[in-house]
Amino acid sequence: MKRSFIREILEAIDEETISFAGGLPSENLFPTQDLKEATLKAIENPKVYQYTISNGINELREQIALRYTNEGFATTKENILITTGSQQAMYILAKFFENKDITIEEPSYLGAMNIFRLNNLKMDGVKLEDDGVNIEEFEKSFKKTKLTYLIPDFQNPSATTYSLEKRDEIVKIVEKNDGYLIEDSPYSELFFDKKMPYISAKLPKNSFHLGSFSKTLVPSYRIGWIRADEKLIQSIMIIKESIDLHSSGFSQYILAEYLKDEAKYEKHLQEIRDDYNKKASYFSEQLNLIMPEFKHEKPKGGMFLYGTFGQGVDTFALVQECLKKKVVYVPGNQFYIDKVPNGEIRFNYTHSNFEQIEKGIKLIKSCL
Amino acid sequence: MKRSFIREILEAIDEETISFAGGLPSENLFPTQDLKEATLKAIENPKVYQYTISNGINELREQIALRYTNEGFATTKENILITTGSQQAMYILAKFFENKDITIEEPSYLGAMNIFRLNNLKMDGVKLEDDGVNIEEFEKSFKKTKLTYLIPDFQNPSATTYSLEKRDEIVKIVEKNDGYLIEDSPYSELFFDKKMPYISAKLPKNSFHLGSFSKTLVPSYRIGWIRADEKLIQSIMIIKESIDLHSSGFSQYILAEYLKDEAKYEKHLQEIRDDYNKKASYFSEQLNLIMPEFKHEKPKGGMFLYGTFGQGVDTFALVQECLKKKVVYVPGNQFYIDKVPNGEIRFNYTHSNFEQIEKGIKLIKSCL
Repeated sequence: MKRSFIREILEAIDEETISFAGGLPSENLFPTQDLKEATLKAIENPKVYQYTISNGINELREQIALRYTNEGFATTKENILITTGSQQAMYILAKFFENKDITIEEPSYLGAMNIFRLNNLKMDGVKLEDDGVNIEEFEKSFKKTKLTYLIPDFQNPSATTYSLEKRDEIVKIVEKNDGYLIEDSPYSELFFDKKMPYISAKLPKNSFHLGSFSKTLVPSYRIGWIRADEKLIQSIMIIKESIDLHSSGFSQYILAEYLKDEAKYEKHLQEIRDDYNKKASYFSEQLNLIMPEFKHEKPKGGMFLYGTFGQGVDTFALVQECLKKKVVYVPGNQFYIDKVPNGEIRFNYTHSNFEQIEKGIKLIKSCL
Repeated sequence: MKRSFIREILEAIDEETISFAGGLPSENLFPTQDLKEATLKAIENPKVYQYTISNGINELREQIALRYTNEGFATTKENILITTGSQQAMYILAKFFENKDITIEEPSYLGAMNIFRLNNLKMDGVKLEDDGVNIEEFEKSFKKTKLTYLIPDFQNPSATTYSLEKRDEIVKIVEKNDGYLIEDSPYSELFFDKKMPYISAKLPKNSFHLGSFSKTLVPSYRIGWIRADEKLIQSIMIIKESIDLHSSGFSQYILAEYLKDEAKYEKHLQEIRDDYNKKASYFSEQLNLIMPEFKHEKPKGGMFLYGTFGQGVDTFALVQECLKKKVVYVPGNQFYIDKVPNGEIRFNYTHSNFEQIEKGIKLIKSCL
């Protein structure tokens, strides 16, 4: 089995390379002063350094639960399991469902696909359309697998957001077949227009809803979570504690301190949305100006812009040339089960500044 | 599959209960002021909040490598993989060797045994004697399994330390059969007299040496590591990054800052050794005074005191009574593959003060 293209790239590139590859948040937006204050308060109590319980500290689970409840999705701390990033949430669920079949979107998040392979889940890909998966294909697949992994908000890699109609169709199909939905939501808060309702909210007993502070706050704390029915949380706990006993208590206490001021977090989220919205617009404009042969839609949220040159260009071959000129992106074939080269590209637009965006696109254009 | 007795106990007990159960370090010994200074320095650079590479930040891997090299075990940062506690190190290796057979000590660390079960490793238990495993039994088992998990220094739960002779025998057997040793070393630095050489130092190509800052510094950073041949590190990296992308970068940068002053860390280690030595002596003395029917040796390092009432007492039944009187320990049967009740007990002596130690032992005595 091969390592993730993105993780290998992160190790290989130097500081001069313009990277549109990883899903890195903008460092300029980290609320460093507020986090410093939260840290200084949290470390007044030496318990922040000790072992803690496997499911995560009560305060943080309560705060996360409250955010769901405020959005109309009734949740208590017993529904929450803190994980070491939402990557670990996916790993735990893949281990829980190992050797089973699973319905996924195509294209889909390659990190999740690697996890599924590692735990011997057989993936059945369903075509992703502009408003979500193709429902007929999805129903046919889900009838057999009874398990699905979806990223309904600003999907990785495609930036697709599911329509309300398709969300309701998914609910009906999961219920009818008494299966499980894994709803991965790392980007849901990063909307430029409005937030869509979680599909899991209508499937409280049959869903695992995955969240993370990596994209909305900082990645290095490695704090994500799973929201699920209490019995399901109890079932997956043995896997969580086998993997790392518990996620960093240090990170958890600092986060819980930071989140006490809800208004501050909301203000921070709005700053990210505004900044990313501007960058998405600029990236899209520059693509249209410099490289109009790359067809795409301007994203409505999240961290990625996806598009295609059409079948004439092999973007996997192209990225090797781009690397020499010190610019990098993720070729679209990485997000498909069979990885057959195609003309698609995923661009991350959040981690570069305007100058780098323009320069990077020009460098790619020069490799065509 | 059942959850770990210790993890369940940690969730169930209240603050009034005297716990001799978990492997909790003493909170009084956390170097909170030095860690605060390291934290404040580290967070001056916003990169501490960003994603980092999967194997761990260079600075920390170099510092860990240097400690091995200084002890005569030549090591570079390429031999080190940072893990989310050494619990995750074990999980990664169990996943790497899934479905294989493995030779373990009996008794052994129950967290490791749970991980092996979860990854379908078939455990073959070898009797642990006062100076290490029974070599004849070990050789017979290892010839078949070609894989072993050992805790040679201040073993968990038995506090046993391997003699130099048995360490050399293990080296010969692993080499002759071209198998692998997983050497778990969370307690090696917590010696009261002297440090023993790592078995892995004579098996650099055929060993995974596991270390951790959880017992020597603080557990909540969740930082441990695997030291292995570079090719082996590359092979297990795919599992590491699938599980959680990377361990907390925030913790790693703070640790790297703290470890810059080697003398400070050494002084801290000596303080822990002195404190734990006093507590081990006191625990042993109080046992002899209050409950002389419990046979044991005073530990020479680590965090645990192990002994037995003999076959007349079922310590698994006893602990249920003890819980009602608000004192808890881990019954010895938890550390055996078949979990048949026996007269053995593992006491943690590092997390309680003198008053709690005396009171706790008296409470247990009253339940007999």
